[in-house]
Amino acid sequence: VTGTEGEPARRRARIQAHLDDLTKPVGALGRLEELALRLAMVLGDPPPPLEDALVLVMAADHGVAAEGVSAYPAEVTRQMCLNMAAGGAAVNVLARSVGARVEVVDVGVRGTEPVGPGVHHRRVREGTRNLAREAALRPEEVEAALQVGRDAVWELGMGRVGGDGGAGSGGGAPLPPGDLVLGEMGIGNTTAASALASVLTGAPPEAVVGPGTGVSGEARARKVAAVEAGVARVQGPRPLRHPDHVRGALAEVVALAGAALACREARVPVVVDGFIASVAALAALRLDPALEPWLFAAHRSAEPGHDAVLRALGLDPLLDLGMRLGEGTGGVLALPLLRAAGAILREMATFQGAGVSR
Amino acid sequence: VTGTEGEPARRRARIQAHLDDLTKPVGALGRLEELALRLAMVLGDPPPPLEDALVLVMAADHGVAAEGVSAYPAEVTRQMCLNMAAGGAAVNVLARSVGARVEVVDVGVRGTEPVGPGVHHRRVREGTRNLAREAALRPEEVEAALQVGRDAVWELGMGRVGGDGGAGSGGGAPLPPGDLVLGEMGIGNTTAASALASVLTGAPPEAVVGPGTGVSGEARARKVAAVEAGVARVQGPRPLRHPDHVRGALAEVVALAGAALACREARVPVVVDGFIASVAALAALRLDPALEPWLFAAHRSAEPGHDAVLRALGLDPLLDLGMRLGEGTGGVLALPLLRAAGAILREMATFQGAGVSR
Repeated sequence: VTGTEGEPARRRARIQAHLDDLTKPVGALGRLEELALRLAMVLGDPPPPLEDALVLVMAADHGVAAEGVSAYPAEVTRQMCLNMAAGGAAVNVLARSVGARVEVVDVGVRGTEPVGPGVHHRRVREGTRNLAREAALRPEEVEAALQVGRDAVWELGMGRVGGDGGAGSGGGAPLPPGDLVLGEMGIGNTTAASALASVLTGAPPEAVVGPGTGVSGEARARKVAAVEAGVARVQGPRPLRHPDHVRGALAEVVALAGAALACREARVPVVVDGFIASVAALAALRLDPALEPWLFAAHRSAEPGHDAVLRALGLDPLLDLGMRLGEGTGGVLALPLLRAAGAILREMATFQGAGVSR
Repeated sequence: VTGTEGEPARRRARIQAHLDDLTKPVGALGRLEELALRLAMVLGDPPPPLEDALVLVMAADHGVAAEGVSAYPAEVTRQMCLNMAAGGAAVNVLARSVGARVEVVDVGVRGTEPVGPGVHHRRVREGTRNLAREAALRPEEVEAALQVGRDAVWELGMGRVGGDGGAGSGGGAPLPPGDLVLGEMGIGNTTAASALASVLTGAPPEAVVGPGTGVSGEARARKVAAVEAGVARVQGPRPLRHPDHVRGALAEVVALAGAALACREARVPVVVDGFIASVAALAALRLDPALEPWLFAAHRSAEPGHDAVLRALGLDPLLDLGMRLGEGTGGVLALPLLRAAGAILREMATFQGAGVSR
């Protein structure tokens, strides 16, 4: 048994020795072994079973939708919250199929608050401002939204007192270990994420704007123009690295970034979904570099900007299935791989234990 | 609801229309939608939940091990059967983590029969002959091993009376729907599979021989020489296509091919694991082209010969995790994706049903 204390290089070597002692040729489980090693580095060897998998879907409207950047009208954000409450959205279906629960946080949906099981009301503002014309959120709104994300992790049951203290879970009984999938939903949010991807990676807007819900031609040109206008307003050298600059640029995916930040404190592995969630994770990483070992990239999105963001995160995703839906759907599909990786270290026999010649 | 009767093009169009009517942008779930379509084509729309997932591990020794082609001694085959019976092998751990069961069939292990839960004795021969020197199996042994594979599917509980009759499950109560992972274990079996891959695809031995359990240098050179000798003895033009020629070449992975063949009769989707299982599936496909829609490629193995075999199968695998263990481990990891794909068609809301604007 290897805890999470002590020198990382020595712990890594001990976990690797454990993996090499299991009844299989060295390295034969490929990236599953790499995944097991990473889990054991943050959670100890063997890592506990990740019994509680929470998909946190941050829902918000985006003022930039007024520029005609999406294939769907803005009211879809609210309608999809209700669809998620009823369990009929893709993320609900996939989460049920792998045994994860979905919680939707309304950080800034427009219109009457969507009411239903698993929908939580934490509006910072009824939709952001239009980033093509002005700052989408004021600094105090950014801080409030970051806090919504942090609080969600603790309030919705993932937070627990970790080995290094952390923010604490209110002193109650320890919660079962789990992992958290960063998901999102909101008409216009690939546009907002593209602007943030551009300033965080230094890639030009043209390179990080994709189809989103399925736009092309003139709608995509409007999307590029909106991103260019938003990017031009953001202060600081490209790529943005300094936390103060990153805070200034953070607007649309801010609550998700807040949730990622809380996960380190809560000692919860973060499964990053697609393009938008990866942008949020990258912003969070720039705010807190110690988040790095807790981040796991689930899948490679079909959105063209995802590659630049993954490179900046230094993560190689587990799945590549051409998905571009968001909601956390790709993240959910990676959960069985994380579970399997942890199980190897907990349950596989060693050569000596099983009496197998080597 | 779309059954499996009637013209395929029309059924395909109906299933596609169902997918496009679900609350997501068209095509946004990427290859998961393609997977859902394929499942619905063979099982009906919506496909039933695949409740019973069986991993069938065909275990056998291979005479060619005498040539020094493996990093492990031949007794490991029998020891690993016992490890699987005790639940400590990688395939047991991964199967438990996704809720699948493992059954091991001793088709030709050497030495005292390994006894334990989930190990079934169906030896055709105590190990095959050395394919570098003579035919590994006689024609009647090939037929017997094919039958072991077919029978295993029915005996171990997957077989049920399908829409088109099939071989029947003995007239008992219908069994829960499921899918079957083709797995294998046996020292020397990548060598045998490489010989078969070469004659079935036309690729030269040098191109289809890989590290297996982890050989390189002189051991790998011996492996190439053994495969060349075996390949030279097989009758027929390359690539082998005619069923009689394929039957003649089948030797080592024959029981697995038999199991694949039975799956069409049993109406069970076949999840093909890595290199060796893919070679077995390709042989089965050459014997029965109607097997094609039932085959699903789970992952891309690190074995270099796998690509040529996948191309010949016309399959694009779901996962690419650098695995090269066999046992069905890669197949097991793909099961959650198949389950998720089927669940989309069963459980996702439509735009109209959920009141979402399009």
